[in-house]
Amino acid sequence: MIIGILKEIKSEENRVSMTPAGAEVMKQHGHTLLVEKHAGAGSGFDNESYVSAGAEIIDTPEDIYGPAHMVMHVKEPLPSEYELINEEQILFTYLHLAASEELTRALTKSRPVNIAYETIQKEDGSLPLLTPMSEVAGRMSIQEGAKYLEMAQGGEGILLSGVPGVAPATVIVIGAGTVGTNAAKMACGLGAKVYLLDINLDRLRYLSDVMPSNCFLIMFSPQPFANL
Amino acid sequence: MIIGILKEIKSEENRVSMTPAGAEVMKQHGHTLLVEKHAGAGSGFDNESYVSAGAEIIDTPEDIYGPAHMVMHVKEPLPSEYELINEEQILFTYLHLAASEELTRALTKSRPVNIAYETIQKEDGSLPLLTPMSEVAGRMSIQEGAKYLEMAQGGEGILLSGVPGVAPATVIVIGAGTVGTNAAKMACGLGAKVYLLDINLDRLRYLSDVMPSNCFLIMFSPQPFANL
Amino acid sequence: MIIGILKEIKSEENRVSMTPAGAEVMKQHGHTLLVEKHAGAGSGFDNESYVSAGAEIIDTPEDIYGPAHMVMHVKEPLPSEYELINEEQILFTYLHLAASEELTRALTKSRPVNIAYETIQKEDGSLPLLTPMSEVAGRMSIQEGAKYLEMAQGGEGILLSGVPGVAPATVIVIGAGTVGTNAAKMACGLGAKVYLLDINLDRLRYLSDVMPSNCFLIMFSPQPFANL
Amino acid sequence: MIIGILKEIKSEENRVSMTPAGAEVMKQHGHTLLVEKHAGAGSGFDNESYVSAGAEIIDTPEDIYGPAHMVMHVKEPLPSEYELINEEQILFTYLHLAASEELTRALTKSRPVNIAYETIQKEDGSLPLLTPMSEVAGRMSIQEGAKYLEMAQGGEGILLSGVPGVAPATVIVIGAGTVGTNAAKMACGLGAKVYLLDINLDRLRYLSDVMPSNCFLIMFSPQPFANL
Amino acid sequence: MIIGILKEIKSEENRVSMTPAGAEVMKQHGHTLLVEKHAGAGSGFDNESYVSAGAEIIDTPEDIYGPAHMVMHVKEPLPSEYELINEEQILFTYLHLAASEELTRALTKSRPVNIAYETIQKEDGSLPLLTPMSEVAGRMSIQEGAKYLEMAQGGEGILLSGVPGVAPATVIVIGAGTVGTNAAKMACGLGAKVYLLDINLDRLRYLSDVMPSNCFLIMFSPQPFANL
Amino acid sequence: MIIGILKEIKSEENRVSMTPAGAEVMKQHGHTLLVEKHAGAGSGFDNESYVSAGAEIIDTPEDIYGPAHMVMHVKEPLPSEYELINEEQILFTYLHLAASEELTRALTKSRPVNIAYETIQKEDGSLPLLTPMSEVAGRMSIQEGAKYLEMAQGGEGILLSGVPGVAPATVIVIGAGTVGTNAAKMACGLGAKVYLLDINLDRLRYLSDVMPSNCFLIMFSPQPFANL
Repeated sequence: MIIGILKEIKSEENRVSMTPAGAEVMKQHGHTLLVEKHAGAGSGFDNESYVSAGAEIIDTPEDIYGPAHMVMHVKEPLPSEYELINEEQILFTYLHLAASEELTRALTKSRPVNIAYETIQKEDGSLPLLTPMSEVAGRMSIQEGAKYLEMAQGGEGILLSGVPGVAPATVIVIGAGTVGTNAAKMACGLGAKVYLLDINLDRLRYLSDVMPSNCFLIMFSPQPFANL
Repeated sequence: MIIGILKEIKSEENRVSMTPAGAEVMKQHGHTLLVEKHAGAGSGFDNESYVSAGAEIIDTPEDIYGPAHMVMHVKEPLPSEYELINEEQILFTYLHLAASEELTRALTKSRPVNIAYETIQKEDGSLPLLTPMSEVAGRMSIQEGAKYLEMAQGGEGILLSGVPGVAPATVIVIGAGTVGTNAAKMACGLGAKVYLLDINLDRLRYLSDVMPSNCFLIMFSPQPFANL
Repeated sequence: MIIGILKEIKSEENRVSMTPAGAEVMKQHGHTLLVEKHAGAGSGFDNESYVSAGAEIIDTPEDIYGPAHMVMHVKEPLPSEYELINEEQILFTYLHLAASEELTRALTKSRPVNIAYETIQKEDGSLPLLTPMSEVAGRMSIQEGAKYLEMAQGGEGILLSGVPGVAPATVIVIGAGTVGTNAAKMACGLGAKVYLLDINLDRLRYLSDVMPSNCFLIMFSPQPFANL
Repeated sequence: MIIGILKEIKSEENRVSMTPAGAEVMKQHGHTLLVEKHAGAGSGFDNESYVSAGAEIIDTPEDIYGPAHMVMHVKEPLPSEYELINEEQILFTYLHLAASEELTRALTKSRPVNIAYETIQKEDGSLPLLTPMSEVAGRMSIQEGAKYLEMAQGGEGILLSGVPGVAPATVIVIGAGTVGTNAAKMACGLGAKVYLLDINLDRLRYLSDVMPSNCFLIMFSPQPFANL
Repeated sequence: MIIGILKEIKSEENRVSMTPAGAEVMKQHGHTLLVEKHAGAGSGFDNESYVSAGAEIIDTPEDIYGPAHMVMHVKEPLPSEYELINEEQILFTYLHLAASEELTRALTKSRPVNIAYETIQKEDGSLPLLTPMSEVAGRMSIQEGAKYLEMAQGGEGILLSGVPGVAPATVIVIGAGTVGTNAAKMACGLGAKVYLLDINLDRLRYLSDVMPSNCFLIMFSPQPFANL
Repeated sequence: MIIGILKEIKSEENRVSMTPAGAEVMKQHGHTLLVEKHAGAGSGFDNESYVSAGAEIIDTPEDIYGPAHMVMHVKEPLPSEYELINEEQILFTYLHLAASEELTRALTKSRPVNIAYETIQKEDGSLPLLTPMSEVAGRMSIQEGAKYLEMAQGGEGILLSGVPGVAPATVIVIGAGTVGTNAAKMACGLGAKVYLLDINLDRLRYLSDVMPSNCFLIMFSPQPFANL
């Protein structure tokens, strides 16, 4: 199959839909890889690294949409690309169609085979292409929260970890799914006093086996958090 | 030196002033060991174990006080022993003289060389014969506290550890010396949320290196504990 | 549905079948809550906390059994209640019918829809309303065991944790299910030398990933424990 | 002694030289406390909390410099205060005289008893009023570093912790004193791969006892870090 | 059923197919146990321990192959045994037939019911009789690796753990199955810097919950390991 | 000062008395460094790395002993070197004179200033040039012990770590100094059941703060280890 890796054009999107390592695996399985020039730049991969992996560097999106059996993006196609999409061509990317009538109508017209990353589900119901984003989001949330507690950022001047003699901050995480658990791990690592709440008691039991001892696992209820 | 190990006669005192292992070390240093019959019974050491260590089993306290250059007890001598103590004989035991005028007067009269366990001090000011008692006391305190939180004992029905979904108990330990630190270790081991307070910041810094992450180290102040 | 929460009348039973937080959730789902006066007292919930959650406080069990579509207890109904139970009314509580012919006959006569907590099973065979009791039992077992090792309780005067220089106690837990694993966690937390035995090797493998390093996981066999 | 607590006037200085808890301790020792209005506002302490601690709230610095035997600041006095300082009055604050000829000349003229926080030293050579600042600085440094690794801040888009499947960042900390050790603890808590370097081997040995296993302790040398 | 436990005759094979504890369980289930003399010697079990478990000690393999309904080995039968195997007799051992045409032909001729340990599979696809071998292999691999890093063995003179001041070795484990995970655990326990690679991201996520903090979990890719 | 780094000539001695990093530091302090050709080869440092550090490579020991104010070795000089040593020249190496009358007489004749590594002592009595050797020895001891427990080495076929279901080995370490503590750390890391014995109770108390929970700290006594 001819697989096209497009450069992201949405503002502030630095990711790329396939790393050189991924390209090499695809190549080993017999596929042809077309990578748009500088597609990996925002993620730290230069053109040469894709060439080493066996891909061909292509100058324009037109020259990728044309021959590719499958085109890959990170974000949804922008209006400038609508005309380039071919019928029966596989479009593999985050689509989030519910949020855009315009995009939905454009794809209905071009009639590619759409496979949205966010809808791919494994047999056990997990969402393999969303989990890594949730892991990053959960871990970043503590980093962001720590920042906005700084007085210079308008916060109350609280250090999550405290120092010896000064109590650490209290962090309450509601929901012990991927995002919440990753957030709790970071907050625990910094030494905060962490409450992780969920309504799934089986999940809390597993977490009681593996979380650090400063993570207190609480059944969520609508009652106030007064005694946390 | 002839060393006498007396059987404790104070009510509910099960300790013995020297174990068979200790007796063996004394023997190796050339001392003669006289051990009162059944002296080790309350601590799980039978007469035979002292004999194996090279000691002689003696039937009565009289036959120990008589020849011994040093007599060892755990607790202070009781009135029945006052007459048995010889002048110049070393009396080595916990004395706590401040608490008993009667004992003080008796010893002043018998004139032994008194060495009270509780007053022995090392160069760094530490009290080597009190520290183990403090370690036991600190560790037992959590065991006792856990018991009196049981509803069957008139407590509030709180389990120190909680269970997954139910927050553990909050334990506040004031003073991070030997007793307090040992208490905090036990409470942390059970999974409680533990605050250990002290006014010695250097001590808190050391503890921040070695205590479990559910031990929160707080500078003591007279302000209320509202935000613990 | 009209749900009635009865006050427990069995001796030494301090639990209540629904917390105020649970009542609030039921209320949000459109149910009517009738809570017997002081039903939550033994668990630390006053009448007011149920009223805040949207429940109505009822003076007598008769006035709950009458209108309720479902009555909830912790323990089985006592003879004084047999006459109050209505045909088709849902009776939701721990029943343990195998242990009481009298109760079984009474329920056969009154013909409610009986749902025994202890029989509710999830698809994976787990028993969600028994697990928390097992967690508490396992954790309490170490607390009780520690108490009965005290000399004042007739024990051998052993401290589970030991102190530096004195070996901790050896704890052998047979069965690594919910009770056994929770017991082992507490004993490990106190610093004991813990052997946890089971015949399910997959379970032991999982536990080898998550238990503290002083928990030694052993395949159970009828051979003696001589080398533990 | 009459002790005056001044409100900081240096830009972006939110600290206060004495907390209400500290004021209460001073009061208990028989001192009179004069606290400038809103002195604690930047640190979250209102006037009322000082009044509860036994202090008197004073409207102007003039009315504190006048009667106080000792005036306390966080930062050095600003030119507007030079005239207010009295001969023989104790001035207790961070002074950093080496950095300001103007301040040095002013104090030489006013002739107070200057005690600079940064020069107070304990018998073992440690600097008790600098250590907490170093602890905060070390811990904040990782928080700041994490921020500037974000792509939105012009960084390389690296998450210190990584996520499962993606290696964490490498953090190299030069100097295992208070700042460095506290930085390393935070980086370790986030899951980074941390190298902590120092030329004091005894310090590295102690740290090898207490640091997490992802802290690698290295003797500093001028050779490049190529194989870290 | 009559079960025969044969002594291993393959060179350097010290294992035995059933321990005395296993024999006792079989006995409790009503089976007759025939154990060849000294069968357990290489594993530290003497004949007497099998007799205590209810087994009968038999002098020759002939007297076991004759009456037994099932014969158990660790390794495959050697040519000297081919003639002894009976039709319909269950032969339960590691067979690895693919590696030996001679053995396969011999068994085809003798026509026992062959059950090879290595082919027994549980519903979830796991191989219960191979997993323990993999656990041992993974753990031994680090021990062997450590040995061959010694200069006396021709290695580079690297100590896996390093010492304070000297970085530990880097250990890269490819594959996070039973062997790899057990190897990584040992290397982490020694303090090495460990990279554990796999292509199964769900597995890496679980391991990120339970592995020590010096185990870095990396998605395997054909790209070089340059930045590990 | 002119410092000479000699190549070790004693059999199986692969160490070198100064690394290139050390040479660079000496250079920065103004010394001249003469390094014998291939002196670092056994430790993985080539001549070029010393040149980069500012040293000069010298072909023969004669050309080093001649001009050097201080000559450095790892091991004691061998007879072939006795004649090369100059009066007043500093000889800095491990000497262990008590073990060799011949060497002692030779040095008495040549009259250099001998500084033996093993005698250098810090103010607190510690031996900085022996401690690293003890750390390595302690860590290696477990590696060696593990090897000799292998059946292929004539051992009993015991794996220190055990596997899930099989108890780990018991390791008894007598003496909690540098060697013993490092040995215990390695054994604990492998999951063994470790007893660390010493007669210094203060040392055991510190270790109880920092050692893993499978290290049991025991006061040494001449009584047998029966109940370990």
